[in-house]
Formats: sequence, structure tokens, C-alpha cells
Amino acid sequence: MRAVVKLGGALFRREPNVTSLKGMGRALGGFVEDGNQLVLVAGGGENARTYIATARKLGGDESTCDLLGIQITRANAELVRLAIGSMASSKIPTTLSDLPHFVGSGKAVVMGGLQPGQSTNAVAALAAEITRAEILVNGTDVDGVYTEDPKKNPKAKLIRSVHVDKLLSWAMGGEVFAGRYELLDPLAIKIMQRARIPTRFVSLGDPGNIIAALQGKDIGTKVVYS
Amino acid sequence: MRAVVKLGGALFRREPNVTSLKGMGRALGGFVEDGNQLVLVAGGGENARTYIATARKLGGDESTCDLLGIQITRANAELVRLAIGSMASSKIPTTLSDLPHFVGSGKAVVMGGLQPGQSTNAVAALAAEITRAEILVNGTDVDGVYTEDPKKNPKAKLIRSVHVDKLLSWAMGGEVFAGRYELLDPLAIKIMQRARIPTRFVSLGDPGNIIAALQGKDIGTKVVYS
Amino acid sequence: MRAVVKLGGALFRREPNVTSLKGMGRALGGFVEDGNQLVLVAGGGENARTYIATARKLGGDESTCDLLGIQITRANAELVRLAIGSMASSKIPTTLSDLPHFVGSGKAVVMGGLQPGQSTNAVAALAAEITRAEILVNGTDVDGVYTEDPKKNPKAKLIRSVHVDKLLSWAMGGEVFAGRYELLDPLAIKIMQRARIPTRFVSLGDPGNIIAALQGKDIGTKVVYS
Amino acid sequence: MRAVVKLGGALFRREPNVTSLKGMGRALGGFVEDGNQLVLVAGGGENARTYIATARKLGGDESTCDLLGIQITRANAELVRLAIGSMASSKIPTTLSDLPHFVGSGKAVVMGGLQPGQSTNAVAALAAEITRAEILVNGTDVDGVYTEDPKKNPKAKLIRSVHVDKLLSWAMGGEVFAGRYELLDPLAIKIMQRARIPTRFVSLGDPGNIIAALQGKDIGTKVVYS
Amino acid sequence: MRAVVKLGGALFRREPNVTSLKGMGRALGGFVEDGNQLVLVAGGGENARTYIATARKLGGDESTCDLLGIQITRANAELVRLAIGSMASSKIPTTLSDLPHFVGSGKAVVMGGLQPGQSTNAVAALAAEITRAEILVNGTDVDGVYTEDPKKNPKAKLIRSVHVDKLLSWAMGGEVFAGRYELLDPLAIKIMQRARIPTRFVSLGDPGNIIAALQGKDIGTKVVYS
Amino acid sequence: MRAVVKLGGALFRREPNVTSLKGMGRALGGFVEDGNQLVLVAGGGENARTYIATARKLGGDESTCDLLGIQITRANAELVRLAIGSMASSKIPTTLSDLPHFVGSGKAVVMGGLQPGQSTNAVAALAAEITRAEILVNGTDVDGVYTEDPKKNPKAKLIRSVHVDKLLSWAMGGEVFAGRYELLDPLAIKIMQRARIPTRFVSLGDPGNIIAALQGKDIGTKVVYS
Repeated sequence: MRAVVKLGGALFRREPNVTSLKGMGRALGGFVEDGNQLVLVAGGGENARTYIATARKLGGDESTCDLLGIQITRANAELVRLAIGSMASSKIPTTLSDLPHFVGSGKAVVMGGLQPGQSTNAVAALAAEITRAEILVNGTDVDGVYTEDPKKNPKAKLIRSVHVDKLLSWAMGGEVFAGRYELLDPLAIKIMQRARIPTRFVSLGDPGNIIAALQGKDIGTKVVYS
Repeated sequence: MRAVVKLGGALFRREPNVTSLKGMGRALGGFVEDGNQLVLVAGGGENARTYIATARKLGGDESTCDLLGIQITRANAELVRLAIGSMASSKIPTTLSDLPHFVGSGKAVVMGGLQPGQSTNAVAALAAEITRAEILVNGTDVDGVYTEDPKKNPKAKLIRSVHVDKLLSWAMGGEVFAGRYELLDPLAIKIMQRARIPTRFVSLGDPGNIIAALQGKDIGTKVVYS
Repeated sequence: MRAVVKLGGALFRREPNVTSLKGMGRALGGFVEDGNQLVLVAGGGENARTYIATARKLGGDESTCDLLGIQITRANAELVRLAIGSMASSKIPTTLSDLPHFVGSGKAVVMGGLQPGQSTNAVAALAAEITRAEILVNGTDVDGVYTEDPKKNPKAKLIRSVHVDKLLSWAMGGEVFAGRYELLDPLAIKIMQRARIPTRFVSLGDPGNIIAALQGKDIGTKVVYS
Repeated sequence: MRAVVKLGGALFRREPNVTSLKGMGRALGGFVEDGNQLVLVAGGGENARTYIATARKLGGDESTCDLLGIQITRANAELVRLAIGSMASSKIPTTLSDLPHFVGSGKAVVMGGLQPGQSTNAVAALAAEITRAEILVNGTDVDGVYTEDPKKNPKAKLIRSVHVDKLLSWAMGGEVFAGRYELLDPLAIKIMQRARIPTRFVSLGDPGNIIAALQGKDIGTKVVYS
Repeated sequence: MRAVVKLGGALFRREPNVTSLKGMGRALGGFVEDGNQLVLVAGGGENARTYIATARKLGGDESTCDLLGIQITRANAELVRLAIGSMASSKIPTTLSDLPHFVGSGKAVVMGGLQPGQSTNAVAALAAEITRAEILVNGTDVDGVYTEDPKKNPKAKLIRSVHVDKLLSWAMGGEVFAGRYELLDPLAIKIMQRARIPTRFVSLGDPGNIIAALQGKDIGTKVVYS
Repeated sequence: MRAVVKLGGALFRREPNVTSLKGMGRALGGFVEDGNQLVLVAGGGENARTYIATARKLGGDESTCDLLGIQITRANAELVRLAIGSMASSKIPTTLSDLPHFVGSGKAVVMGGLQPGQSTNAVAALAAEITRAEILVNGTDVDGVYTEDPKKNPKAKLIRSVHVDKLLSWAMGGEVFAGRYELLDPLAIKIMQRARIPTRFVSLGDPGNIIAALQGKDIGTKVVYS
């Protein structure tokens, strides 16, 4: 099976949780050992947000802020690579055109961001497209897509299935600032839409969720195309 | 003055019009000689579309098609560089982070596409943002933004001024396919929106239009932010 | 078996023939699947000639024209890569010293031009030398080397076998202009001569010709070294 | 005047002090505006230490930990670049051999770490050597070199002048771990010794200290060579 | 088994001994064929010393001299690669972070120097660390570490085992000049110390010595860590 | 004035003559200080020949031998760069497309070889073409082109002027082996012919010869095009 997993910033706290990283690494490494093709895209998390906020206060434009955030996502990708250990590729691709060269080595390929103006969600969607992934799992700090922000409103309800057009209309509401690309980045959704990539949003809290989603179990929120 | 000009695919016909290219080169070279900072972004045109269509028929995914289109935009950029002559930088930047290094040499910097998933309109918007351009002129094959496609309906009316939110809502209607990124690519508009880049859409038919727009004349369609 | 095939510009028409490309891709992919080592070098064709002619009219020097032609050969190489599909390497080498790294992956390696002043025929000869190819097949738009131009004179006779010295003396007659490197580029012949690479010139019209030549069948024109 | 300043990790707290960065940027920018040549080397600070510690817990070897720390120093360098603004070079060199190419543009060049096994102190010494700097100022979180750790023992006395051999013998006492390269990294001292680079250790607490040291004032600790 | 072998400059005479190189290549190639992982680091030898001395006389700083020496070590590495033949990787890594990508291909990886300020002994130690080598064999022109210079004093005695701290204190005595990095480069020893890499110094005179050391035989001088 | 000078291998003896290099550096630096644009191309000399001969004995193919020779020419270029000092560019371009970017900085640009299959004479001709040089001076170990080898036959006569076609017919006589590319490399002559570059062959023995040729004095052998 060919898969892409986006590992949201929630995995990359200021003081990283080594136990979580190890657990995630073990689960993902096992998935690769079972003969599956896997690309992982690490998000930015708190450190990316701090660097970007500082850069902005120092007068940096948004593209420069994006570049700084990308550097941090690559450092995060390095941590994921180490957590997976021998089942991970020894290097991190930094352009999309390099990615196919890395994939198929029988190792998990880990990457961070690529270019200003692209969230790591968009990178994950492009990676899924160019590696012809059969599934894209987007791991976040909540259980999927909700009717409202579940951290603010405990009555928010998890949506089990959402049409890509719906996602897109939600996405177009927000503004695009470096480091605050939301779950619902419009470019990412446009790519998902053009390539019709089967996608699920699940929680990163337990590596088992990611594996379940990779195995096609009905967990989190599923994106529907027709 | 710091400016970015997007040169639409209309300038890059299958059998390029050398006279048009020379005229455009002379006008833009003069603008730089007057002490202005200029970044030019070349689109793909017919050749890009043909390569992309062939690649798609050969089973290429959209990201690979994008990469092929980018190669052609860079060949087009090379033609623009030659048309401008001694007032153009001797090399074409291929990443956004290289761009600031090229700018400020007192020469026009010419570039093509950068990454899959980004139209050259998005590249132009990012280039405007990172070089802190005071104006972005988007040269196309029509006189600006119309109420309808002016090539299909002669009664289509030119819109002299359009709000960025309006542009964005139109943009979200269409699908994103390599080589068919429209004028109204949503990512490009999102970048314009976040950086509030003063932008005009004008016709490439006469280099004078581009220069007029650069000089702040009221020509074509202006994008309004508030 | 270790082989290099030059795919002449005849395969890369302005409006590429997808059926021809697919047929060629299938035949060459099969040759690799049979356990052979294969390097393919794509020529420039009509599009390269158009870009070069335009660049020259814009005042470009021959080296810059060469560089532009090389960009187009690489786009052509990308099409060949797609036509071959899963049996082709995922990336195109752009320097000769990278080539050995790509070869031996069990995949066909596709490349375009490398450097100004070198025709893709010279690239094919250098690639044959550095990969220790046992045969170099040069696919062109005619059936081999003729006594005269067979497109101009129907009485032109195909030469079944020609000494490398003879080839060289013919080659030295013509001038070397970007995009008009003839079959008989002197540098290419000098490399063939120094490495004594078994070489055949055959027609690209039918993929079967290329395969036949690879299998050592007596087809087209053979180059003799002693 | 040609100078190199090492900006110790103390400037790069987990929650960066924007006011400090701005003040430092303004002072250093002014020094460049006065016609001086300046190379700045950013250290790693708390974020580098956290990433390195995490990597080590995930089983990363010291070289990989070093590489991760280098990524963070480059993100820090980016912040310094922004703090200096228009008087800073637009790009960060990542190899020593690129450095001379950047210097002499009349802009401050900012860089981070270069290679595993080299502290940013060693990078600063190498940068001073290759740019023929007349002074190397090493900015740390204390006022210079002390008889004991001044943070642990308030009776520790500042040493106003120290012989390079003495520094070296102290340096050889400690172990070399990524992220804990001390002020007294032996490689850095060996480079200082071979190039006899006039060096001062001063506090980063006030940009005025750095400028004073650059102007040859007797501040902090001076390294003596004979 | 995972091993690193440093091939000292003694193997790279002004007029290289082709028979020695072939013998060494055959022995090392055989070691790889037996299923071992091997990284080779070539030193500079006479040619490096000559280029460095000339550069210094022309006013080159030590970092530039180092860079020149590194170019020669890479040319030497190329000779080793050729001597090993088909069991050697087809390319020479030029950064430490690229090394893990090369290793594990089942081929010997050959490299030269990496960065100014690092001897090839330090490179060998870093390579051993990042590839988790079980042994580092340092091949020199004498049989190991002696009480005195055996070329000057025939009564010098070979030391069969030496503590790393002892090595380090000796190393700190000498100065560090490009091209005269001694056996006992302090940085190299610091890296050995931090990674506790099992290390032996043996003579390059006979490839059998290198192989014996790789097989764990008690030959030359062994470094002891506790 | 825009000029290219090829510095033949005669300047790069096994034991380089520092006085000669310094004299040449001073003369060429002065030429640049007078406001001229200058590109220098360093040949390989004895060291290149030794490395190539060793590589060939170790079974290296000619392309690999060429690559090794190119590495040595780049080390030689570094020596020339140092000899010129502050009037030389700080870096050596390694591709032809990078060259225009270096030229025009008001500094001499020094380079070595570029690609297998191209002698440094061909590189010099390509460099002259792409920088639109008004003169190409080819410095060798004899006073110009002779009727016979002047080192073997003292009666050999210097030819003051030779037609490019004559040069080419002579060039086609010899074989092309790495490291033995003669003065009369056919590719170099073909490039001279297509760009009609005014060229002189003079002796390297005295820097005054090179300067005289650059100033248009009638010295050595002149190439005639019509």
C-alpha cells in the first residue's frame, strides 16, 4: 500500500514528548516493515510559531516567515526520522521532484515543508499525488473535523464524513498567514480535489489511530469526493 | 520603485513573435534603466500546454505535469532575459529564497515557475511579497478582468476595479489543473490578500500598457483591498 | 547487456505523437525488464529548434542558445521517462558524473543534453563510454547513414557499414551551430573513436528497429573501427 | 575594518527577546554603514539544546545531533539578518568556501553552523581567518573569561587578558558534546592560534559592549598570543 | 560488520604506486564482498602538501589552503574508488550528512576531506560516528603509535595500546597547520573520545594489515577508552 | 575590453614556480585594474597528467579520467586566483551558465575545466563566446603555432598567421585522449570558428607576452577567419 501521513504540529511541542515520538516511530516503522510505502510530512508546531512570530516582529515579510517555518519543520522531520530508526530513509527530500527518487527504497521517507506559500498540509497532498498514494492520513490534535472548535465548545460534534467542496468553502473563509495555516488550507484541499486522494483526519494522540486509518478503518473524519 | 510584472503565456506563442518580445524587452529594460527594481515572471503559454497535455496522456500525475510546465516557463524566461539584454540579470533564480539575492543588482530579474501546485501568478504574488514590491502588474491576453469571457461574448464588460474578496470567490469556482491555472488562481489571490499588494491586470498586447500600469496610470483592472 | 540509445529529435514533434512515444516506451521498458542496463538520451527536435532560433534572433550567443536547447531536451527526456513508466528511473541526471550513480538501479535512465558545445549525440557517446556500454544505438528519422540526403534525393543509397574515420571526415565538413548539430557531430565521433563503442544508426520510425539493433541484428548502418 | 562577531546562544532564548535583537541589529547595522566589513555567526541557544537533547534520547548519534543543532543556528541567523534589515546580506552562506563571495558586498553577512564536529565558535574563528578579519569578538552571556563559573561562584574574577596556550589547556579538560561546546572549544582555539586572530570575549547583554570591542576598547577578556 | 578505514597520504605519492593501489583495492573490495559495510577516507599525501605550500607562498590563508588540500584528497579518493572497481560506490560524498545515504548500498563508499579546519583523520572519526562503525582503522606509513618518531630514532618502540587521554595530551602539543595535521589531530581524538570508537593505527605498507585490523586481530596500536 | 586567457599546463609544474605564478598574477591583476573584463582558464599540467595516467592504469574509462583531470585544473585555477589576489573573484565557476553571473564584478574570474570530453581549450573558447570576448589569448609553452614541434626540431618555424580551417584540418589528425588534448583540440577550433573569436597563441614564459597579445600587439600566432 502507498500512503502519506501528515504529522501535525501537536507532535512537536516546545519540550518534545520523547515517549510519544518513540511510540509513533515504532508504529510507523512497523507499517513500513509490513511492506508498505510511506511518506511522512512533519508540521511546524510551537517552535515554528515562535520563530515566525519573532521574525514578523522584526519586520520580516510573510514569505521570509514561511521560509523560517520550513526550516523548523525540517528539524521536526529529523526527529521523526530518528524515532523511526532503521526503517527511515537517511535523508530528508527538500523538493517535490526529489521525492519519487527517495520512495520505493523500502524505507519511510520523512519530509518537512517545501516552499513559501504552501502549508505542510499542501505538501502532504502534493506528496500523495506524486507518489500515487492510496491514502492520505492527516494527524491533528483533535479527533477529526468538528462542527465547531472542540477546544472552545465541548458540544462541538465530530463530522464523520465531509464533502471536499464543503471543506473548501470553509477553508476560503480564513486568511492565510505563515504559521497559522489551518487544517483547512485551500491549496491543500484543491490538490486533494484534483487528485481525488482518499483522505482521513484523525487524532495524533494515539499512534493506533494513524495505523487504523491507514488500514482503512472508519475512524475520524473521511473526505468524500462525489 | 519596486515592481513585479507577470508576463502571461500570450507572449509565448508556439512560433514566438520576435518583434513583440523585442518591444517588450526594450520597454522593460528602459524601466530598469530609469532606476527601478523589476522582477519578471514568465508564464507557460502554448508550449507548456502541449508538453503538459502529452505528459498527462502518457499517464503523468499532475505534479509531474506541473514540473514539466515549469521547465517550459524557465525557457520562456530565458527568452525574456535575452529580449531585455544588458539590463537583465545573467541568471534565472529557481527558488524564492534566492530571489532577494538577485534583486538590487540594478538589473531586471527574470524567472519562471518554481514548484508544483503554484501557478506563475502565485509565483508573481510571492515575488512581489518577498521583494516588497509597490506594484504587481499582471499582463494577460485581454485588457483586464471582464464580467464574462470577452473572447466568447463580445458584450462582456471590462471591470475597472474589483475587490480581492470578489476575485477569490470567482477563483474558488474553477478547478486547479496544471497548465490551466486561470488568471484567478486562488493561491495567488490569497497571497495578494495577505500582503495587500497593489495589483493591476492589463493587456500584454502593447508594452505601453505595462509601462503605464507601472507608472500608476489608471489602466485595465485594479484590485481593491478595502 | 549494457546499452545506450539516442532518441533523435524526430520523436519530439511540435505536436508529439503520443502513440509513438507509448510504443517506444513499451519496447524500451521491456528491454530493461529483461535485465538489461539502458541509458536513453533524448534529442531536441522541433521545439528546441524554435526556441534556439528565437533566442538567436534576440541576440543570444551560441552558448546561451545551446543552454536553451538543453532545457528542451530535458523536457523531452521527461516525456520518455513517463512513456516508459515504472521501468524508468524517477529522475533525470544533469551531469555526466551523476550518471553512474543512476545506472544499475535496474531502471532505464533517461537524460537530455548536458553542456553547451556538446550535441546530444556527443552526450550519448560519453554516456556509452562512462557506463561501459556494449552498444550505442542512434535512432534518427532515416534508416541509417546514406550516400546523400535521402529526403532530397530518392536515389540516395543506405550505407550498411562505415569506417569511423570516414564519418569523421564527413563531419568536419559542416559547421557547428546550436540546434543544427548533425548526425555527424565531430566531437561525438571522436568519443566513439577513442572508446571504440560499437554503434549503429537506425530509424526511429518503428521501436522494433531499436530493439533489433540492441539485439545485435544487422540493421541500419554499422560503424566499423578497424 | 574587517571583523567577525560570534553571537552566543544567550541571544536566542526559547521566547526570543525582540527588543534585544532589534538593539543588536541596529548597532551592528550601524557598524556596517560606517564602512566596515562584518561577518556574524549565530549560536544555537536553548532551542538548539532542546532539539539536540531530544534527538539524543531518540538514539541519534552525535554527528546527527550536531546537524540538527546547525539547522537551529541557521534559523537564529535568519532572525539576526532580519534584525539588521537592509544592511544585511539577503542570504546565509552554508559553506566556508562561499563566505568570501558574500563578504565585500558592503552588507553584513550572517551565518550559523557549518559542519558536525565544529562549534559555532570554531566557525567564527574560521570565518575570521578566511576573511582576514582584524578582530574577532565573541559575545557570550558573561563579561568575559572568569577564573571560575561566575554564575555558580560570585567570587569568580574576570580575567582581563589570557594567553592562547592557557585557553587551550583549559579547553582540553572538557568533553565535546553537541550543544555543549563550551566557550573554550579546542578546535576554535587551535584556529585562533594558527591565524593569531586578535580576539575578545565580551558580554552580549548590551550591544554597546560588542561595538566597544570592535572599536578596540579594552573591554572583557583579551586573548594574547605571545 | 561496519567499518571505517583512513588511508593515509603515504598511499598517494607524487608518482602513485599503481601496484599498491591495486592490492589495496582488491583487499578492501573483498572485505565488502564478504558483506561488510565500509567507508574509506583518503588523505592528502605529497600532492596535497605541494599545492598547500604553493598556496601559502602566494599569500593564501590557512582556510583556503585547507580547501585546496581537500580538492586533492578527493582526487585521491577517486583513485581508490577506481582501484576497488565494481565494489565501490560510483560517487564520492562531499558532506557528512550525505554519507548515510551512500552507505548500505552494499558498496564501499570512498571520500576525501570535507571542510577547512578538519583533518581527514577527523573526517574518518566523524564518518565512524555517523555510520555507527564498530571499528576505525587508521592506516599510516608506520606500524602504529611509537614512543618517538621511528623514522628518526631506530630505537623508538611501538606502543601496543594507548589510552585516548594520553593521545589527546600528545596531540595538544603540536600546532595545527593545513597539510601537516599529524596522526594526532586533537579534533579527531575528541570525536573518537565522545563516540568511544574502537580504533587501531596500523601500517599501510601491506593491505593484509588493514584487513587483519578489520578482523579484530591484535596488530599495530589499539586505542583504549577506560 | 573583454578578454579570455587560457593558461596552459606549462604554468603548473609538479613543483610550481611561485615566482612565475606571482609575476603572471601581478600582470593579469593589473590588466583588470585598468578596467578590463577578464576570464582565465587554467589547464591541467603535469599533475593532471599523472592522475589521469594512474586512473587509466586502474581501469578508469576516459570520461572518469577527464573528470579527474578537471579536478586538478580547478586546483590550478585556485593557485591563479591566489596569485592575482584582491583583483580576482573569490570563487571558481564550475558550469558555463554560471560564468556570466561572475563576470562584470570588476574582478578577474578564474576557472578550470567543466565537463568530460571538453579540453580546457574548448572551455576557453566557450567562455569567450558566452562573455562576448573581443580577444582570446591562448598561453602555451612555445611561442605560438609552429610548422613542426619546435622542441623536437630546432628548424621548426613559427607561423605568424593561420586560417581556422587549416587549424581544424591539423586538429582532426590526432586522437582525443584525456590529458593529451593538444593545442589543436577540434571542438575548441569549431567553437572559435562559429563565434569568429579573435585568437592568438603566445608563450606563457613571460607575462609580458600575454599582456602584449591582450593589447592587440602582433605577437605569437594569430588565427585568421576569412
